[in-house]
Order: sequence, then structure tokens, then C-alpha cells
Amino acid sequence: MYIDPTRQLVRGLCTLLLICTCFMQLHAQVITSPDKNLTLTFELAENGTPTYRLSYKKKPVIKPSRLGLETNDAGSFMEGFTVSNTEQATVNDTWQPVWGEQSTIRNNYNELLVTLTQKEQQDRSIRIRFRLFNDGLGFRYEFPEQEHLNYFIVKEENTEFNLTGDHKTFWIPGDYDTNEYAITTSKISEIPQLIEKATIDVHAQHPIDTLAVQTPLMMKSADGLYINIHEAALVNYSAMHLNVDPQTFRMSSHLTPDAVGNKAYMQTDTKTPWRTIVVSDKATDILASKLILNLNEPTAYEDVSWIKPVKYIGVWWEYFVAGKSTWAYGTETNVKLSDDFTKLTPSGRHGATNENVKKHIDFAAEHGFDAVLVEGWNVGWEDWFGNWKEDVFDFITPYPDFDVRELYKYALSKGVRIMMHHETSGAATNYERRLHQAFQFMKDYGYNSVKTGYVGKIIPRGEHHDGQWMVNHYIHVARTAADYKIMVNSHEAVRSTGLHRTYPNYLAQESARGTEFEAMGGLAPDHATILPFTRLMGGPMDYTPGIFQTDLSYYGTGNQRVNTTLVKQLAYYVTLYSPLQMAADLPENYTRFPDAFQFIKDVAIDWDDTYVQEAEPGDYVTIARKAKGKEEWYVGGITDENPRTAVIPFNYLPKGKNYVATIYADGKDASWNKNPQSYTVRKVLITPKSVLKQRLAAGGGIAISVKEATNEDRKNFKRL
Amino acid sequence: MYIDPTRQLVRGLCTLLLICTCFMQLHAQVITSPDKNLTLTFELAENGTPTYRLSYKKKPVIKPSRLGLETNDAGSFMEGFTVSNTEQATVNDTWQPVWGEQSTIRNNYNELLVTLTQKEQQDRSIRIRFRLFNDGLGFRYEFPEQEHLNYFIVKEENTEFNLTGDHKTFWIPGDYDTNEYAITTSKISEIPQLIEKATIDVHAQHPIDTLAVQTPLMMKSADGLYINIHEAALVNYSAMHLNVDPQTFRMSSHLTPDAVGNKAYMQTDTKTPWRTIVVSDKATDILASKLILNLNEPTAYEDVSWIKPVKYIGVWWEYFVAGKSTWAYGTETNVKLSDDFTKLTPSGRHGATNENVKKHIDFAAEHGFDAVLVEGWNVGWEDWFGNWKEDVFDFITPYPDFDVRELYKYALSKGVRIMMHHETSGAATNYERRLHQAFQFMKDYGYNSVKTGYVGKIIPRGEHHDGQWMVNHYIHVARTAADYKIMVNSHEAVRSTGLHRTYPNYLAQESARGTEFEAMGGLAPDHATILPFTRLMGGPMDYTPGIFQTDLSYYGTGNQRVNTTLVKQLAYYVTLYSPLQMAADLPENYTRFPDAFQFIKDVAIDWDDTYVQEAEPGDYVTIARKAKGKEEWYVGGITDENPRTAVIPFNYLPKGKNYVATIYADGKDASWNKNPQSYTVRKVLITPKSVLKQRLAAGGGIAISVKEATNEDRKNFKRL
Repeated sequence: MYIDPTRQLVRGLCTLLLICTCFMQLHAQVITSPDKNLTLTFELAENGTPTYRLSYKKKPVIKPSRLGLETNDAGSFMEGFTVSNTEQATVNDTWQPVWGEQSTIRNNYNELLVTLTQKEQQDRSIRIRFRLFNDGLGFRYEFPEQEHLNYFIVKEENTEFNLTGDHKTFWIPGDYDTNEYAITTSKISEIPQLIEKATIDVHAQHPIDTLAVQTPLMMKSADGLYINIHEAALVNYSAMHLNVDPQTFRMSSHLTPDAVGNKAYMQTDTKTPWRTIVVSDKATDILASKLILNLNEPTAYEDVSWIKPVKYIGVWWEYFVAGKSTWAYGTETNVKLSDDFTKLTPSGRHGATNENVKKHIDFAAEHGFDAVLVEGWNVGWEDWFGNWKEDVFDFITPYPDFDVRELYKYALSKGVRIMMHHETSGAATNYERRLHQAFQFMKDYGYNSVKTGYVGKIIPRGEHHDGQWMVNHYIHVARTAADYKIMVNSHEAVRSTGLHRTYPNYLAQESARGTEFEAMGGLAPDHATILPFTRLMGGPMDYTPGIFQTDLSYYGTGNQRVNTTLVKQLAYYVTLYSPLQMAADLPENYTRFPDAFQFIKDVAIDWDDTYVQEAEPGDYVTIARKAKGKEEWYVGGITDENPRTAVIPFNYLPKGKNYVATIYADGKDASWNKNPQSYTVRKVLITPKSVLKQRLAAGGGIAISVKEATNEDRKNFKRL
Repeated sequence: MYIDPTRQLVRGLCTLLLICTCFMQLHAQVITSPDKNLTLTFELAENGTPTYRLSYKKKPVIKPSRLGLETNDAGSFMEGFTVSNTEQATVNDTWQPVWGEQSTIRNNYNELLVTLTQKEQQDRSIRIRFRLFNDGLGFRYEFPEQEHLNYFIVKEENTEFNLTGDHKTFWIPGDYDTNEYAITTSKISEIPQLIEKATIDVHAQHPIDTLAVQTPLMMKSADGLYINIHEAALVNYSAMHLNVDPQTFRMSSHLTPDAVGNKAYMQTDTKTPWRTIVVSDKATDILASKLILNLNEPTAYEDVSWIKPVKYIGVWWEYFVAGKSTWAYGTETNVKLSDDFTKLTPSGRHGATNENVKKHIDFAAEHGFDAVLVEGWNVGWEDWFGNWKEDVFDFITPYPDFDVRELYKYALSKGVRIMMHHETSGAATNYERRLHQAFQFMKDYGYNSVKTGYVGKIIPRGEHHDGQWMVNHYIHVARTAADYKIMVNSHEAVRSTGLHRTYPNYLAQESARGTEFEAMGGLAPDHATILPFTRLMGGPMDYTPGIFQTDLSYYGTGNQRVNTTLVKQLAYYVTLYSPLQMAADLPENYTRFPDAFQFIKDVAIDWDDTYVQEAEPGDYVTIARKAKGKEEWYVGGITDENPRTAVIPFNYLPKGKNYVATIYADGKDASWNKNPQSYTVRKVLITPKSVLKQRLAAGGGIAISVKEATNEDRKNFKRL
């Protein structure tokens, strides 16, 4: 049964609303955030055009900006409006996510709901709902069911974000099909001269042919405001990019088109996703914001007991670095699902063999990992990419050297799960056609999580990764997976918008440049200091950290390099929040550094609380978190290409106790490109009053685990 | 398990082939049909362009015509060829269809297989396979697996059909989405001036913007040749239309594009459908041709015991004529699948109620019908059409007044099946997503056949009814239905190409203008004399004949009229071959004419043999058939708007016996527009030597059933 979460919420709200209904037309409506720092003003401009503006501590954040949509078939929702009703409400409550950075999340906002009527369009009406939190603004368009508005096609949404100046901006090029670009840092006015270079080759890309960037877009104003624009609850609509006017600093919504150029198909009663503007004068507040989660609907599932965060290893990194193995079993360059795959010519380099998988299961079991991802287990990899081919994979036929039943039993006996891999090659139609069979196969063989992939041009042909049809597809997959109690980790899907609140089995996504690119040119040393301010604003990423052997020439092939120190890789488990964390390196590399590996084994993947201690996008991030249900704390700190000294307090620790901190620090001679494997591990005694000042190497980091000190600890270790 | 029928056939052929392999290049290759009437010449023209020509009894049928394809990404397959190999073969065998017009079909042809190599394209090669039967030519392009050809995208196929003159042509406008046009009869040169008028409004149409017509295209030359162009075995390719040059009488292939304008996605080893040219100097030979079936692959199913022809009635015609009932239950104009449909406002006019369905089940049981089609049983009909909406129907939720369990039990107790109706509204993606659940629901409630519908613009948006993706969809539905032992009758799908040989559970299709249009402006009196030469060349149609109450003003609404006599409706059960035949009129109309109704009750729907006795497209058709496994024969004859005298021999009857013929004839004062219900039923004794001369009224027909005469018959009835 599908429980419409909107209805539940509306019912819940009714008990809280302080309704102020004004039937006369008002020219300006103003609400403030609960802490009064933010002020939102709605106003009808000339010709009945809706506008809004936003300020933070009296500084303008968004100058007066138009709101509205154009349609292909139902006239424009841009002007000719009068305000026929306004309502205000206040909500202040809390809720508990199934998993997350905090066990309890406060949801506190003031709401303004404006009903607008177009007299010349048969009195049809729309609503714009604004929710102003202490950490920012969310607003959306709502289209109630009414006599003269049933179906319409969105030609374009024209929501404007008129910025106040030439902000420093952390951006990737607008693209309908990929988010896997390196992040460029520049002023808005510099985007035109940089965008061609920024639009590097990425598989199946479709860059927008006008000047546009993607969200979540992070900015910093000259007067010290941090501003983040994104969207929340992207459901049954296409993803929003931002048109950029480099002269006026006006940004405006640019929706992803479908195969025939339409942006969205709408049926009343309906609504757009929330447009979100997170604002603060402290960068740490941006990372602590729960605004996007608060704007998503509560979980759609009754039973969530089967949904658990996952720490995993995989038959994966060896495909990128070791040069010894591949996804494909055969050497052929032309295969069909109807082929007899036992007749393929084995390359001898197939990675997903019984032997290799068992080796990984053994390692996972020995070191306490929940699961082993195995890519390349199923037939079809010989020519899976680049042909816009529909029937690439069937998701149920293993290669001859992967014995699914035997491995199932083996993993079961070791208390480890195998993580399924469903690469679709972009052929979503093929995946949907086979979805139930594929999930049933997983249940039959004990899999409870799947990594999905969408590498390639989308089928239905002409659709895009970020379009309405695919947006609905990803949700369909997640919801269907829930019917089978399967958790999902999507790669190359549309970027996150907080839907993991509603569908908590949708644990994480890729949808950004992650570790794999370290083996394909490398990631900039500041990349991971920006990601929490951009991609991660929408939700967890399967970044796949944990690379200890950062110099990839170690494998005798090429001169690629992971652009971090070893310790920075440890810090990622804390700074890059996800309920799904991989230890991505080869098992033998962990065996070489058992003391550092201990942090990966120890670190929690679900949290009671989170303390963003230091942050500046492009420069550094330091975060401490308390493990869920345990008296354990973990700290991660990273820096960009510059060394720095992190200042790390422990004031969140319960008072009156002593603690032992295990500090994983860069060696004195370490840097991302020299001696990256130089590190120290030391234990010290601390109290809530302690403050650690620790030098981070260039491209380096720090990782700390904290537990209550035993008597033994007090004897053995010195005070900080 | 999927058994590739191609492989089976190839294996079978090897035992029969008389291989003549010539390694030197030949400039002209000639084969003749087994009876020597047809001659096919293949030749390479200048620049290595493949050409063919065809003659019948030394008269040219197709003048030298180019062959080849253009690709988007792999260079052209149009020129630069040399002949690297040719092979000839002869096949003469027979096979038994699961159901059909004959219990045994002869498959006798001479084959020419030409291998062509393009030196300047890395020696890549294609093959053109010609099969020359006594009734015509089939040829196709084949793309073997090879080093330098794996994947390619077809930009256009440029197969030419250079006709010899300004033939009389029976055509409908080229359209990517519908075949439901009235047929125009004109010379080729007259098509330009007639096509605008011929392109009448049809739902979700997409007329081709250049001069083009659809296949099967029937033509008659000034020197008396009947020529039919179509295709066989349309699988994994887009449907072919024909470009028309009204000056030179050159026709050429025009494939249906996909959402981005591509025509087909190909992976070697692969092939196109067969292009077919059925030729004779006798129109009856065209109707007797089994060429298209012979060019299709044998059945893909091991067990076909569950596949049975179906004679059915339905809750259907009342939606078109009686004005009393509708598909929709509620009066709302905006519904969603998530709505509570028990809360709809009942219109009081819903057709698929328990009471009405039971009435139909009773009638079906009393009169020996296999099934009752019930349309409008499931939620979603309130606003199902015209909104390019995806989630229109879920195929498993009945309206509140349709008790699926109770009706299942009721039908079971009466020995009748309910026929499922799956209208998709063109949203094929939604249907595929729900397909297994929908078919399981059918199995759970005893349904064994489904009428599918595709009324509306296709989703995936930008795809067309006749494109490669949808072609694969229809086959996917039929194959999946077979997994559930369900028979399929598709409406608004791509027109038939003989695939019912391979997928015999795909009993019939609409894909042309059928009886429903009699209630929406009427069908021309010659319509059904042309259909067997056009649409039906590809396979059976669910024409839904049997309308007794032809004057629709009878129902008190409007002045529509079915443009036939009552008897012509009876004749359709024989002249319009289908294993799926409906008695489409309201039960109460059959009760009013029990003697005429007896023919519908008696007539067979599966046949041992068929005798096409008289035929001229646009004028008349007379066909006799022997019931499968029974000593019963049925004759149907129809005429256009002109009265005529049919001359009907019985020389196919086994000799040495006497027979009684029940003759259903137009009354003397009958015509399609005056006294259409005037008819006589008489019984006479006949022998194989008897010849009946019977006057058919304007727009009239004749129907005859023949059985061996009993002694009683011999006493009671006179000799003819």
C-alpha cells in the first residue's frame, strides 16, 4: 500500500498551524525565520508578476526575483496574478531519521502560503509555499485541483535568484546527463571564460548549450555570506540547473528537457520540488543544515527495521588500478544476451571469480565488514558501453566462473553479504522490464543491497539522466527494491535532493566525481573540501574512500596518483557523511598498514550527533560525530593543497569523564604528492576541555577516535 | 528458455540446400520461381550499387531498383560493393500452423544469397537474401558478425520499388502512429492531389511530412498484374512506409524514426525484415498467398496446446452506439491511480457492472461463445486519453461495481472466459512496468486472453507506434503473455507482418479501420473488399463483425449507419479471416434475428483449407473454407456498393456425397442503405458439381454453411 506522505504531513500540520487568513489582496507579505535572522518578502510586481526577496541579518541575499512557469499548452503562470489568499503558520517539532548524522532533527520554520489567481485564465489559481528556517529558505509552486486546470506541460520554470554581487562560486557545468565534473572555483563573472575548459570529457555527457551551472551551487559573497542553492524532494519533475547571467549575477531555473523538449508533465493536484537557499555567515552552518531533509516527506515505508547502514569492501578498485582484472569474462567485442556465455574466450583477467570473491569474503569477515561488492559478475560486459544498446544485461545470469549459489552459501557461512551490482548501461527500459526478476534473484541468493549504475546514454532514447522520466525511474527502483527489502546505492543517477528521508533504503548515490577519478587523472586536493558544500547538500555519496596505496605507479602501470595523504583518506569516513562507506583499496594494502586500517574498522557509519567544527569550502573541513548508540566519537579533518593546523575541541564530550583519543596524523614529511603514506598513530588522554592543535600536511588530514578511558588507558597514555 | 528460431531454420535448411558457390564476381544473378513464372535478377550497377528487378510471365513487375541502407555512424551500405560470393538453394517442404486458413502450408522457393563486400570499408560484408516463391519475392539485408562491423544506427533504408506504370493503388497515408485511415483508390499519379483529404483526423496520428503511403500496399497494373508490397517478420526494426514518386512511379522504403530521428539500432549478426512483393495476374492468388507466413520463423514456443482460436462477444458495442453506457465509472475529469475510486461520483452509466457482465456471460454460455470481452472494468477511464499521461491504468484494480472474484466464479460455472482488456493509453513504459503483475492477476482470475490497446501518443515520449522500440514492445508483451499462457489481441499496434507464425498466441490485431468506425462516420461499402488485399496480407484482424442492427438511429441517438446489409456482416466471418472473431452487436439484437444468428454460432474459426473463389480489390471477395477437423464448409461473399451475382462452385467438396447448404442471402429489396435487414435463409441440397449463382445486394453479401446431408435433409430440401 502506498501512503501518500503529503497527506500525512498536511494532517499533522493542521494541529500546529496558527492560521492567519487574509482575504484582501496584499502587496507585500513578510515572514522571518524563527531566530529573526532571515526575512522573506513576497510581492506582486507590475502586471501581477510574483516576486520574492531574501535577506540575512539585514543583508540582502536574493534581490527581488521573479517567480513563475511557462507552459506549452495551458498559458503562462508568469503574470496576471492577484493574491487571493495568504496563510501563515509556524512549525517547531522534531523527527528521527532511520539513519543519519543526528538521531533527532529539529524542524522549525515559519511558513507563508500565498494563493494567486489569474482572472483572465478562468480564475485558475496556484499557490506558492515559502518555509523560512533559521538556516535558509525553501519554496515551491503548488497547483491545486480545480475546474480549469487538470493537465499541463511545463515549457520552462522561470524562478529567479538575483544575487547581490559577483560571488565566489564553486560550480560544475550545467549538463543534462552527468554531475561527474571537476569543481571550478571562480567569481560568477568569470564563469563564461572558464566553462569550456571546465566541460571536460565525461561519458554520456550532454552539456547545456547556454551558460548554466548545476546545483547544489555553493557561493560566498564579498561580505562574508555563504549561500547554497539547490532543490529538495525532486519527485515527478525534472532536475533544475541554473542559467547564469555573468553581468547582472541573476541566476534562473533551467529544467532538464525530455526527448521532445518538454520539461515536465503535470496533473493537478501537484507541486514542484522545493527550491532551497541555505544561508549563513558561518560556513559550518551550511554543513550543519538539515533544511533539505526537513523539506522532504517522512518515510513512505511502514517497516524500516531491515534498513541498516553498510560498511563494505569490493571487487572493484582492482579494475581501475591493478591492471590485472576486468569486468568482462571474454575477449569478444560483440555479445548478445542470447549467446552461450560458456563458449566465450576467457581473457584470464576476469575479476569476479569464485576464488577472488571468496578471498574478499574472508577478508570482510575477518575485519568486520558487512558486505562485499562484486562488479562484473554477470554476463554482458564484453561490449556493454557506448552502443546505445538496450539489452545489455539481464541481471540474473552469472559468468561461468561465478557460482552464485556456492558464493551465497560461502558468504552466509561467514556472516557477510555480497552486494549486488546492476549496471544498466543507461538502458532504464531494459532494467524496468527485468526489475522484479532481478530483485527476486537477489532475494533467492541472499543479497540485500544493490549498487545500480547508469553509465551511458539513456534509453528511452532522447531522455536524460536528469529528466522527469528518469527521476521517476530512480524512485521506482528504490520503491520496488523496498518491496524486496533491498537497499540501493545508485551511480550516475540524478543528484540527491534529500529523498533518502522518504525512501531510507535509498542509502546513497554517486552523482559526483568520486574516488574512481583518482585513477583517471586524479581529483584536485581541494575537491573533498568542496563536496560537502555542493553534492553532499542533497544527500550521502558513495565516494568510496580508503585508498592507502595512493601512488598508483606501485602497480607498475602508469603514473596515476590519488591526490591525498593516507590519513586524509581516513578522515573522509567522517567528513564525507554516508551510511554506506566503502574501504575501497585492495585488501592486501590494508594488511600492509594494520594500525591505520584500524580506524576504518572502528569508525561508525551511523550517528547520534554531529559537530561541524571548522569549515571553509575549497580549504578545509573538520567534523566530529558521536556514534549511534555508543559512547564513541570520531573526528575527521581535511585540508586542501595547503598544510594547516586544525584546532579541534572536544567540548561535546560528556563532562566529568576521561577519554582516550587515538590520533591518526600525517607524518611531518607527508604531503599528498610526497610521502603520502607517512603517518603516525598515537593515543592521548583527553577531557571535554581539551583542544587539539594538529598540523595537517598539504593535501592531508587527521582522523581521531575517542572512547572513555579505561584505568589501563590512564596508566598507559599521557594527557594531551 | 529462448530458442532462436533462425538457428533452427538454418539447421533445417542445410539438409535441403543445393549449394552453388561461385567465388568469382558475377555481374548478374538470375533465379526463377519454382513454376518459372517469376524471374528475379540481381546486378551490381555503377559504383558497386546493388540492384534487383522482377518480372512475372516476362512482364516487368519491378524495374531495376537500388538496394541499400545509410547509417549514422558506420558509413553507407549503398555503394562500393563487389560480389564476393553467391549461393543458390531450393526449398520445398510443408509445415503446419497452430491455427490458420489451412492446416498445411507449402513452403517452396528458390533462393539467391549474395554476399557483398566493401573494399574501402575494411572489407566488411553484408548479404542480401532473395527468396522467390510462385506467389512472389521476399528479400532482406543480413549483416553477419565480422571484425569491422558490430554496431550501427540506420539513418534510412533505401530499398527501391521502381514500378512499371501508373498503377491503380489502394492506399492509406503514410503515418508513424496509426493505420486507421479510410482506404483511397487512385492512380499513383493522383496520390499528391488526394493525400490531404485522405489524411483524416485519427487519434494520435503523425502523418509523414513527405509523400508516403503505408504497406501492405495493393496495386493493379494496366496490363492486369496484381502487385502487393509489404514486409514479413518485423522484429527489432522499425516499420517500413513507402515514399512515392508520382512522376516516375518509384517507391522507396521510409522507416519510422525514433525520438531522436534514428531509424534502427543494429548489432551484428542481424538482419532486416523481409521486403515482400506478392504478384499474380489473378487477384485470388494474392489472397491465397502464404508468402509472408513462409518468410516468418517457426513458432518460438515448445508447448502450443493452450493456444486456441476464440469466438467472443463483449461489453463493447454499447459504448459506441447505445449511448447508455461508458467505460468510465465516475463523472470526475481528473483522477489518479492513488485516488480512492470508491469515492468517485458514479455516473450511473458504467458499462462493466456485475449485472451487465453476468448478462453477457449468460448469453455467451447459451450460444456457445468462448469468451466475453469486458472493457471499462478497471480504474482510470475518467481522463484516460489525450494528456500524454504515464500512470493512467494499473491493470489490476477493478471499479467498485465490478467484482472480479465473483465474476470469475460465475464465468467458470458457465464455462465461459472473460477476456481481459489492457488499454495502455499509449503508455508502453507503464504497461511494461506492471506487466508481470497484470498477467499474474489474469491467471489468478481465470483470464486466458487479453485485448491490448495503444490509443494515444506513445510513452517513451517521442517514440512512435511503428518504431523499433514499440515493435520490440509488442513482441515482448506477446512473449511474456505466453509465459502465462495468455493469448493477445492488440489494438493500435504496428500492423501485422506474419509474426503470428512465430508467436501464435498473438492471435490478432486491429491496426486498421474496423467496425468501430461504422459508429463514427461509417466505412465505405468497398472497405472490406480491399482489407484482405491490404491490412490482412500481414495477418488476422480483430475486425469485430456481426452488426445486425445496422441503422444506428434505432438507438435514438444520431443518424449513424453501418454501411452493409445484415448478410454482409455474416459473410465477414469467412471473408475476413481471423482466429479471433467477435459477434460485436448487442445480445438483444441477435435474439431478434435468431435464424441469421445461427450462422455466427455455427461458423468455424479455424480451418483445414481455404478456397479463394472470386476476388477483385475494391469490388468483391468470395471465399470458401473447410472447418478444421470437421466435415463442414463455410462460404462468405461480399460486394461493394454495387449489387452483383456471385458464382459459387462447390467443387472442393469430397465427391460421391450429398450435402445440404444453408444459404443466408440478401433480400430482394435489400441494400446497405435501404432495408439492410432484409434477408432470406434457405436450405438446398448440393453436390461437388453444384454451382450457386446468387445475387448480392448493393453493399451486400452471402453466407453459406455446408454439411453432409442426412436422410432427413434429402427428404426435406430440394436440389440447387
